[in-house]
Amino acid sequence: MSLTDGVKPTDITINTDLYQLTMAQAYWENGLLDMKSNYNLFYRDKPFKGGYALCCGTEQIADLVENFVFEDEDITYLAGLKDAQGGKLFNPEFLEYLRDFKLDVDIWAMREGEVVFPNEPIVRIQGNAISCQIIETALLNLINFQTLVATKASRVVYAAKGRVVSDFGLRRAQGPDGGLMVARASYVGGVSSTSNVLAGKVYGIPVYGTHAHSWVMSFAEEIEAFRAFAKAFPRNCSFLIDTYNVAQGIENAIVVAKEMEEAGERLGSVRIDSGDLARLSRQARKRFDEEGLEYVKISVSNDLDEYTIQSLLAQGAPIDAFGVGTKLATCDPEPSLGGVYKLSARMKEEEESWEPVMKLSEQLYKRTIPGVQEVIRFYNEEGFAMGDVICDGTYMIEEGKEAVDILNDDIFYSFHQAVSSKSLLRQVVKGGVPCAEKISLEESREYAQKSLSELDYATKRFLNPQVYSVGVEIGLAELRSSLVRKKRRRS
Amino acid sequence: MSLTDGVKPTDITINTDLYQLTMAQAYWENGLLDMKSNYNLFYRDKPFKGGYALCCGTEQIADLVENFVFEDEDITYLAGLKDAQGGKLFNPEFLEYLRDFKLDVDIWAMREGEVVFPNEPIVRIQGNAISCQIIETALLNLINFQTLVATKASRVVYAAKGRVVSDFGLRRAQGPDGGLMVARASYVGGVSSTSNVLAGKVYGIPVYGTHAHSWVMSFAEEIEAFRAFAKAFPRNCSFLIDTYNVAQGIENAIVVAKEMEEAGERLGSVRIDSGDLARLSRQARKRFDEEGLEYVKISVSNDLDEYTIQSLLAQGAPIDAFGVGTKLATCDPEPSLGGVYKLSARMKEEEESWEPVMKLSEQLYKRTIPGVQEVIRFYNEEGFAMGDVICDGTYMIEEGKEAVDILNDDIFYSFHQAVSSKSLLRQVVKGGVPCAEKISLEESREYAQKSLSELDYATKRFLNPQVYSVGVEIGLAELRSSLVRKKRRRS
Repeated sequence: MSLTDGVKPTDITINTDLYQLTMAQAYWENGLLDMKSNYNLFYRDKPFKGGYALCCGTEQIADLVENFVFEDEDITYLAGLKDAQGGKLFNPEFLEYLRDFKLDVDIWAMREGEVVFPNEPIVRIQGNAISCQIIETALLNLINFQTLVATKASRVVYAAKGRVVSDFGLRRAQGPDGGLMVARASYVGGVSSTSNVLAGKVYGIPVYGTHAHSWVMSFAEEIEAFRAFAKAFPRNCSFLIDTYNVAQGIENAIVVAKEMEEAGERLGSVRIDSGDLARLSRQARKRFDEEGLEYVKISVSNDLDEYTIQSLLAQGAPIDAFGVGTKLATCDPEPSLGGVYKLSARMKEEEESWEPVMKLSEQLYKRTIPGVQEVIRFYNEEGFAMGDVICDGTYMIEEGKEAVDILNDDIFYSFHQAVSSKSLLRQVVKGGVPCAEKISLEESREYAQKSLSELDYATKRFLNPQVYSVGVEIGLAELRSSLVRKKRRRS
Repeated sequence: MSLTDGVKPTDITINTDLYQLTMAQAYWENGLLDMKSNYNLFYRDKPFKGGYALCCGTEQIADLVENFVFEDEDITYLAGLKDAQGGKLFNPEFLEYLRDFKLDVDIWAMREGEVVFPNEPIVRIQGNAISCQIIETALLNLINFQTLVATKASRVVYAAKGRVVSDFGLRRAQGPDGGLMVARASYVGGVSSTSNVLAGKVYGIPVYGTHAHSWVMSFAEEIEAFRAFAKAFPRNCSFLIDTYNVAQGIENAIVVAKEMEEAGERLGSVRIDSGDLARLSRQARKRFDEEGLEYVKISVSNDLDEYTIQSLLAQGAPIDAFGVGTKLATCDPEPSLGGVYKLSARMKEEEESWEPVMKLSEQLYKRTIPGVQEVIRFYNEEGFAMGDVICDGTYMIEEGKEAVDILNDDIFYSFHQAVSSKSLLRQVVKGGVPCAEKISLEESREYAQKSLSELDYATKRFLNPQVYSVGVEIGLAELRSSLVRKKRRRS
């Protein structure tokens, strides 16, 4: 709970795994300070058995880089750490080096709201070995979860078919930051508002909320509670009608709605938070309409996700708005995006070109793609995305309309029909200094809508989505195969 | 990402759902400022299909209360919010009231590390209606997730049967706070260390870490990477041996371990992060032992949880330490504790005693327990916990050894065999001011071990755990039934 434990912005520097710092010292001890590295941040499995992920968190890389400073108190803390035998873990000279440390990195990243597929670099980092290494954890911490939430939010919004969706997840999030990130990433993913006031203040996201069951229970009778709330918020009024019994809640809401009409006001909506939401929302709609209260909207909540929303609408439930909390904030049932950060090329001081490297692993699907990579997206004449190609920096787009599947060399992708293409990585940090124009959250949200609209419906559906074509450019795929053969021969 | 978005400790005040503030204004507008309320924070379903939850987060309530101040910038933000018709959402006079607002609450809470069961108040809050209402979300945000993680951690540690367990979850957590909370709550739950350096600095938790695959990939040959790391950390050395091929990794580690021996040093351990950990750990152990390197420990990681650890040990895998990341940090597969916060009694200004209230709900299991509640735990002569009774404040422990099940009046619990009992709630805030002695994280961790040791093994097992007896004291159960009848008659 950093909010009450005195954590400050530059603490992001040590918001890291210890091994980043031990490796940093090992680079330093071994005279490898000036070895250049190229890392990629990417994910391996599409979340929620869906067809895509929605990039989020990359717009905050600039803040991360700007705050990346070891404070004296950090150095003091690190100096006190012991090794397994009770000696000092860190070399005092190395800690002096850290005290004046400045990140020396160039960073390219996909825009927030970009649709992204497995193995594509969401972020590409180049710089000296230490710089690249010690921002790994903070970057993953920033991007893994926000990308997952933005993806979940986009699915929930897709299911709601244009109806309002609000984020109610703060109470189930991983602390204040968890709540802030849920609100921020959900907004990028298409949610309309959040209940989280701090997120409203920090990010300018529209906030929404009315009252809880406790409000009703604070009065002897439900109808009194409704009257009292209408008195306080005549122009922003929603009643929660399931504290005791929804049928009675509807009737009480009708009585007070008519009293409001007499006073020249209008009841905005009612909310149902338990029971069979399909049946109860129909019952409410029917009674309100019978009473000439067609304008009263119906909102629902209660462990909703994309599937329950889809089911409710398929049943014809007359629902106008959804409050989505727990399952959005925790990305239930897949609470983590397995985003990783892997070295793909290195360059020694005396060298002039990158040496591509790859991890073999005991598990085939954990093998990485070597080299300094770009991602090119191809579009057909209707403006739909046809597929992506991961290629190395020397690859020419015009030539590169052929690629092979990452797991199976026998599967070819051809994009000769493409009428346009774009490169998905843009430079956001140059020489350790943020260099890209800031993009507002609102713009990222619009960009997400555009990216998603370019994706075929078959890829967006929940059940057995069509697999979007992502290939490795043929030259790069051959390089990868040759590296595998070389490593296997040696070991 | 509060670390880089300039969030400060008092922002915890608006780390809340908007409806808390709209309800607060409604209390204010309706002259209900001095109505006293009694709320309980509790959960309904045991996480992970297990037998218990482990309370965590309550020790931070003092910080929450101390930082609960509306700053001028918060008031300015709230003043700018619009209602549905474009007018001001909040009454400027109410906002002036908030500007000088002080929490007027008494709070009782279970200790961190207390084993807690469904429907038992983890926290009980009494005070004026507004005070109780506007800390709801921050309290839930604090306790829901930490209790879930502490529970998960205790299960993982239980499965590891005394072997070392380390938290590696930062990169998959919900931002910096998520990572901090994972580390903190995991430590209370019994984990030995964390990779999270910031958690080490903030909470004094032991930190642990060595190197990643990228370290190995930064060198032309794996063995060079091992030598270079041994040079940097001769006394704290662990090699990750699965970057290319574990069989070869083992042999390279053996060569360097022997070189270290010649230099008077000892290789601490190796880590395997992919593949069949049971087979590969056996293979490694065999080779190390053959080479007289019995002292080299074997640690493993890779999507571990309590079930994989239990399975590995059941297969006789010679593993000394486990690094548990993603599934601990995200509490996979149940990423949320459904903790709620419900009004259970109210008292009007002119009254002298509490009026118990309850929520009926459309779903039976969402019905609450009315009244001002205590939780008494009974122990048998072997020191094992026999069961708990939820009772109201007027209930006498000596009389109260009989209770009924919360869902079924026909199931009775009797604790006549008990030789001792204790009340689980202790007062932590009095008149808005923290009043309890601070308990260190280390003490909470020890307390958790003690609480868990008092729990029967049958309740701790993962498969179909024995249901621990929790009853509602008979008088309170009768009150509850009568309130149901009364409400149903009226509606």
